[in-house]
Amino acid sequence: MAVTPVNLQQKLALFNERWSPKIIAQMNDYHIKLAKVQGEFTWHSHAETDELFLVVSGQMTILFRDGAVKLKTGELCVVPRSVEHKPVAESECAILLIEPAGTLNTGDAASQRPSTAGKWV
Amino acid sequence: MAVTPVNLQQKLALFNERWSPKIIAQMNDYHIKLAKVQGEFTWHSHAETDELFLVVSGQMTILFRDGAVKLKTGELCVVPRSVEHKPVAESECAILLIEPAGTLNTGDAASQRPSTAGKWV
Repeated sequence: MAVTPVNLQQKLALFNERWSPKIIAQMNDYHIKLAKVQGEFTWHSHAETDELFLVVSGQMTILFRDGAVKLKTGELCVVPRSVEHKPVAESECAILLIEPAGTLNTGDAASQRPSTAGKWV
Repeated sequence: MAVTPVNLQQKLALFNERWSPKIIAQMNDYHIKLAKVQGEFTWHSHAETDELFLVVSGQMTILFRDGAVKLKTGELCVVPRSVEHKPVAESECAILLIEPAGTLNTGDAASQRPSTAGKWV
């Protein structure tokens, strides 16, 4: 039987990097990822896909050019494709992301940050 | 700005039906759903899609023809397409589901249960 349960807290304990999503599951051609975020990420957008953010612990804010969405533990939002956004978090925040396999965390932005589509943990 | 935060507990407070998924968000052509489950669901499979289960509160078991997976709060699993499964929960359990828009909860099964692809809450 190929179905394995995945415990979010156990997976989160495996890494400490910020802004470096780790893949924990695949559903069809989508990856489910966990990330720890703290500080400010870069402005970016994804031309080809929406992106789901679910806060597992802590809180974060997603800045948009015309506003902001605050997300607490147990809250999610979907950033529509092509919409510029900048995730920020004052303190460490753990998030679950869902996006097509291969999606880069920096989207279409030319960034000083290393771009990653995530590695499995 | 069209992005709205969705609070899982607030959405769960809006309904009490069992085995009747409610849509809370859309990402690309996928629906994010919440459901309250208790008791036994029907054996079924989805020929066209994998299905993600994430336990938001409580615990559940997904029975397979060759085994079972127990999921506690904060645990997820992906049931691969075409794999027969039967979700069961002794006590009320709240789950988050991700599957393509239009996916029926009873999959390919001829069921006495009413089939639903979910309604928005």
